[in-house]
Amino acid sequence: MTKLNKYRFFNPDPTVRSIASDLYESVKNLPIISPHGHVDPTIFSENKPFTNPTDLFLIPDHYVFRMLYSQGIALESLGIPTIDGSSVESDPIKIWQIFADNWYLFAGTPTGVWISHELHEIFKITLPLNSKNARKIYDELQEKLNSPEYLPRTMFDSFNIEVISTTDAAEDNLNAHKTIRDSNWNGKVIPCFRPDSVTDISKQNWKTNIENLESVSGISITNYSSFLEVLRQRRKFFIENGAVATDHGVLSPYAHLVSNLDAEKIFNRALSGKQNKQDADIFTAHMLMKMAEMSIDDGLVMQIHAGVLRNHNQIISDKFGFDKGCDIPVNTEYTRNMQEFLNRFGNDKQFKVILFTVDENVYSRELAPLAGHYPALKLGPAWWFNDSIEGMTRFREYVIETAGFYNTVGFNDDTRAFPSIPARHDVARRVDANFLANKVARHIIDKKDAEKIIKALTYDLVKEAYNLDSVICQLADMKK
Amino acid sequence: MTKLNKYRFFNPDPTVRSIASDLYESVKNLPIISPHGHVDPTIFSENKPFTNPTDLFLIPDHYVFRMLYSQGIALESLGIPTIDGSSVESDPIKIWQIFADNWYLFAGTPTGVWISHELHEIFKITLPLNSKNARKIYDELQEKLNSPEYLPRTMFDSFNIEVISTTDAAEDNLNAHKTIRDSNWNGKVIPCFRPDSVTDISKQNWKTNIENLESVSGISITNYSSFLEVLRQRRKFFIENGAVATDHGVLSPYAHLVSNLDAEKIFNRALSGKQNKQDADIFTAHMLMKMAEMSIDDGLVMQIHAGVLRNHNQIISDKFGFDKGCDIPVNTEYTRNMQEFLNRFGNDKQFKVILFTVDENVYSRELAPLAGHYPALKLGPAWWFNDSIEGMTRFREYVIETAGFYNTVGFNDDTRAFPSIPARHDVARRVDANFLANKVARHIIDKKDAEKIIKALTYDLVKEAYNLDSVICQLADMKK
Amino acid sequence: MTKLNKYRFFNPDPTVRSIASDLYESVKNLPIISPHGHVDPTIFSENKPFTNPTDLFLIPDHYVFRMLYSQGIALESLGIPTIDGSSVESDPIKIWQIFADNWYLFAGTPTGVWISHELHEIFKITLPLNSKNARKIYDELQEKLNSPEYLPRTMFDSFNIEVISTTDAAEDNLNAHKTIRDSNWNGKVIPCFRPDSVTDISKQNWKTNIENLESVSGISITNYSSFLEVLRQRRKFFIENGAVATDHGVLSPYAHLVSNLDAEKIFNRALSGKQNKQDADIFTAHMLMKMAEMSIDDGLVMQIHAGVLRNHNQIISDKFGFDKGCDIPVNTEYTRNMQEFLNRFGNDKQFKVILFTVDENVYSRELAPLAGHYPALKLGPAWWFNDSIEGMTRFREYVIETAGFYNTVGFNDDTRAFPSIPARHDVARRVDANFLANKVARHIIDKKDAEKIIKALTYDLVKEAYNLDSVICQLADMKK
Repeated sequence: MTKLNKYRFFNPDPTVRSIASDLYESVKNLPIISPHGHVDPTIFSENKPFTNPTDLFLIPDHYVFRMLYSQGIALESLGIPTIDGSSVESDPIKIWQIFADNWYLFAGTPTGVWISHELHEIFKITLPLNSKNARKIYDELQEKLNSPEYLPRTMFDSFNIEVISTTDAAEDNLNAHKTIRDSNWNGKVIPCFRPDSVTDISKQNWKTNIENLESVSGISITNYSSFLEVLRQRRKFFIENGAVATDHGVLSPYAHLVSNLDAEKIFNRALSGKQNKQDADIFTAHMLMKMAEMSIDDGLVMQIHAGVLRNHNQIISDKFGFDKGCDIPVNTEYTRNMQEFLNRFGNDKQFKVILFTVDENVYSRELAPLAGHYPALKLGPAWWFNDSIEGMTRFREYVIETAGFYNTVGFNDDTRAFPSIPARHDVARRVDANFLANKVARHIIDKKDAEKIIKALTYDLVKEAYNLDSVICQLADMKK
Repeated sequence: MTKLNKYRFFNPDPTVRSIASDLYESVKNLPIISPHGHVDPTIFSENKPFTNPTDLFLIPDHYVFRMLYSQGIALESLGIPTIDGSSVESDPIKIWQIFADNWYLFAGTPTGVWISHELHEIFKITLPLNSKNARKIYDELQEKLNSPEYLPRTMFDSFNIEVISTTDAAEDNLNAHKTIRDSNWNGKVIPCFRPDSVTDISKQNWKTNIENLESVSGISITNYSSFLEVLRQRRKFFIENGAVATDHGVLSPYAHLVSNLDAEKIFNRALSGKQNKQDADIFTAHMLMKMAEMSIDDGLVMQIHAGVLRNHNQIISDKFGFDKGCDIPVNTEYTRNMQEFLNRFGNDKQFKVILFTVDENVYSRELAPLAGHYPALKLGPAWWFNDSIEGMTRFREYVIETAGFYNTVGFNDDTRAFPSIPARHDVARRVDANFLANKVARHIIDKKDAEKIIKALTYDLVKEAYNLDSVICQLADMKK
Repeated sequence: MTKLNKYRFFNPDPTVRSIASDLYESVKNLPIISPHGHVDPTIFSENKPFTNPTDLFLIPDHYVFRMLYSQGIALESLGIPTIDGSSVESDPIKIWQIFADNWYLFAGTPTGVWISHELHEIFKITLPLNSKNARKIYDELQEKLNSPEYLPRTMFDSFNIEVISTTDAAEDNLNAHKTIRDSNWNGKVIPCFRPDSVTDISKQNWKTNIENLESVSGISITNYSSFLEVLRQRRKFFIENGAVATDHGVLSPYAHLVSNLDAEKIFNRALSGKQNKQDADIFTAHMLMKMAEMSIDDGLVMQIHAGVLRNHNQIISDKFGFDKGCDIPVNTEYTRNMQEFLNRFGNDKQFKVILFTVDENVYSRELAPLAGHYPALKLGPAWWFNDSIEGMTRFREYVIETAGFYNTVGFNDDTRAFPSIPARHDVARRVDANFLANKVARHIIDKKDAEKIIKALTYDLVKEAYNLDSVICQLADMKK
């Protein structure tokens, strides 16, 4: 695939394709708003050239190496770093060759689609990726990565990113964000407050995370109330650094307020290393409520990413750590689990909570009816495994009839792989264009309405859902 | 959208569209059979003009106002009456304006589709609905509502409704139905026996409902056996008034017979106000079995609507009451929950039980295999949130391959909004035509078979499933 | 339907249809590999003519008679044999007439599609099946069944079956397989080791099955360790007879190793008839682990078919026995249930476990992410109720984006109905061709890649997943 077809991903029916193409063209060049993702901000604070194609495309992207692993290719041979520092393949060219040899595995996958876009649209590679061309393409990519055109900030600008949010631990000092703001570069990179490392008392390194939180905040955490105080302070600090949202990764979206006394007891048990699994579940449920309370106070939009059982494969996580492609979704319930939360906060028009799921079964059964009722609740886009052509289409098919378009928040790229950002947004725009074109061609939605809707999905709803207008102005002001 | 496209909702592919259009034309003008719905029968017994467009289109339709509420518009400002009578917006024109201003929210939703049909096909409005045209359209509608052409009975006749069933509490006196029968109007309006108010001992007003049941039946309910006796009597009364079916709204479809002694104990606890949640669950499960037993005796078709958690938002139900758009589906299991029921009654060819679900996940996994085996079991159409273009299509895609067409029962409109009835049936006919056309174009079903099937889905299967032929004759005889 | 359309099941869009047709033509004539099914091997060892059309098409096929039963037709009138030998309809012509009268019920079902193929493509019937033609078609089929052309082995050869696996109880003596191997016929028919009858201690005839196992192995089973020894010996015996795989039908895919002592205790309770339901669940979970251990040793591929509640309708199973169309799927969980199993065995590249489900809800949520990570895990095709045009399409839509094509294993026909084999494989090839054509037309997959993929799905991946190449050579060698 040396040239990407301009009508790609659209229904081949000429009527639908033509409408889809019109709709896509109308938003194709809109700026990218990336309100949730995992790009490392030091990429932009340091603005160093990316080392090599393997380090850029493969090593950080568990979407890529989990597929290779599933076919029996050892992570060691792919250069994935081990926790104990034991040696792994260090020749990026060898690793790239394995990837190229196995590129056929990605046929029909979103990773395949994104990397094709990156190679051909961003890096202007004209050869198809395969065993024979592996080295040539590697060399061509390496040459480009060494050129100023492909420096991180230059790429950011050429991607037309209006604003991007990283995701940062509560105990992060946000120095990279400060460095960016203090620089002469105008790129808008904001943090997002993700307190899981300190609110989930079952985490292996919880105690260390708490110590780091003490150290960064300068407050000692001796009990539950000082813990809450620090969280409030950190949220304020994140807001001062441009944050508009929090993010909460939980196995279950169960939210339930316990008494202060009970919360205190659990927290004390955790401080003395005596917490059990039930303590952790209750505390997580409790902290979701407390975080919403704080959001009501300080205005941060709340994101909840629920339903993934992390580190399913202990052999891999013991050797290579987290985020290594062995996180597996589970059956997830929202109607009952979030009833207390929504009764308490869901009627508040000033508050916003954005729900994400990897369990597609709840789209039409639970999430769309909830979002079609509660003013505070909005639905995040198809997430993770479902951030794909068919997955995004199903999200719209299952959600829109009940929740409408305006209870959704547009697209999130949610990526660790920086150059995949324009690819991912392009796919989302194409899928939305095609979804809408199908409705227009079937005379369910007027074409004029579809034009407004695709602009909303691409741009307006994202800015609105995440309150981005004010932070964009604030960041721009700082540069003056 | 001032004129609705004649090919609307069909696949734009010319082959499919042309077959869909043929199939649709063949059933477009068949009479409407509406075997399950929630239209108030006093509309037809009184036959008064509808007050105004707002009272007709918006106030009774929680599908409409829940969407507006989800976008932060207070129910008070939409004129939704409060339980305590505290004041709400009373100017129907103001409310209509809010609706028109927010009409764009309904793009792609079934409510949007139905109301477009109502405005343009039934009320012959030519202007598109928007902020600017709101008042003009309101006035035009008001003028029409004041004219004899838009009186309820005249609309009923012009909608070509052959028979419609309302849904009525066990303690209802069915006076409205009697008035209709005793009138010189030929419209066939029959009741449906819905005993939830007295079989669900966890209902807030259960005691009052029991008292009303005593009062309407003239029998005192002092224990479990007199309760059963009254239910038998009421069912007989409903049958005399034209009822062909019962309806049971339950959270879980679990059915299980307990001993008479245990049932008696639970019922006595309820009479003395001492029932607990477990009592209520057991009693509901038990009464589903008893209702089936009575159906075997008296021939009433049994409908079970399961899986909706009612009044999820307590703030709303406390202030505005039930059916206010905050009922949310939950995960629902049928295979195990209904095993005892189906083992006991499912092999009886004379008995019919029609199942409905809002949990699409059970279509292919549980409902289609069950309906494809048990003679007594039929599947009701896509319900509530899934009564939509995509929802109905999914129902057919997931169900037909295993259960066939002939274990389904055609369409239910299930509406409280009287003028939406022809709109809803038109959508269902179009969706079925399109579904079948797709199979015909792919040479899975012969066109001649598809013609028979669409007639069955629209008309024959509905009459057969609900035993409607005899009641139609019976009602016609009464008029002679 | 007297002639089947050559483009059947393809998207009618001309672009997609033309690509689908090309892809289909490229694999249409490839040999059939049937690695999992339930055809009786004595058909081929005896090679007697099939008695009559009713015995061939209807009596063994619960897909057919369950649909007739669901419409109120008694199984007795369809000649389904009773356990107690009480009399049922014995006139095959009468039964065939009932089937023909009700043939319209199968519109849009896979059974309808398969039988159309069998009648028109295999038996060259030109009349459409209906009440009027029933007898004529019966006679024509009977005449053909009496001819040498339609002897089982001749049909096997004309179907172009390269190898077929039956499914055989652990206590089976495999005599039919030996007879086939010792014959002068070259057809390759291999057994598959299915030990459910002896590993599921809740089975009614468990004790008898154990006795049969003792008798066939010549080893007495006095305790847990002799039980394991016999299983090892039987697996060896199956391998010597050509087996490449085991198969495990379980309600839940829960796998968990208990201590030898605990396993011993449970097994002893079972031997003395004192096992309870919990014992059975634990022992099944334990034996899944032991079977995987043995597979690691002896190389048999492990198949797990989970999630069907057998014999839901006790009236039917009491009278007619098992496999009578009343097995109903249940909600099935894999992520947590198989975590211990996959942590222990899933990283082993030499081991292969193939998972099947009738719960479509886990395709994208659990199975695709698991298969997209664990090297040992592959996904079996859409199973049972979902082995249908829409069901197979959904399998691909929900699975491929996350797991890719190469973590799936191509098609299984899984049938008891021998003449449906070519029909079923033809449907699968057409559905895959259409699925791929849709991706090609949308420029998601290159046509050249699609050509490789469809060959892989039809042939290469099946042989590879089930290690069939060596057994095919081994069987061929024996004939020399």
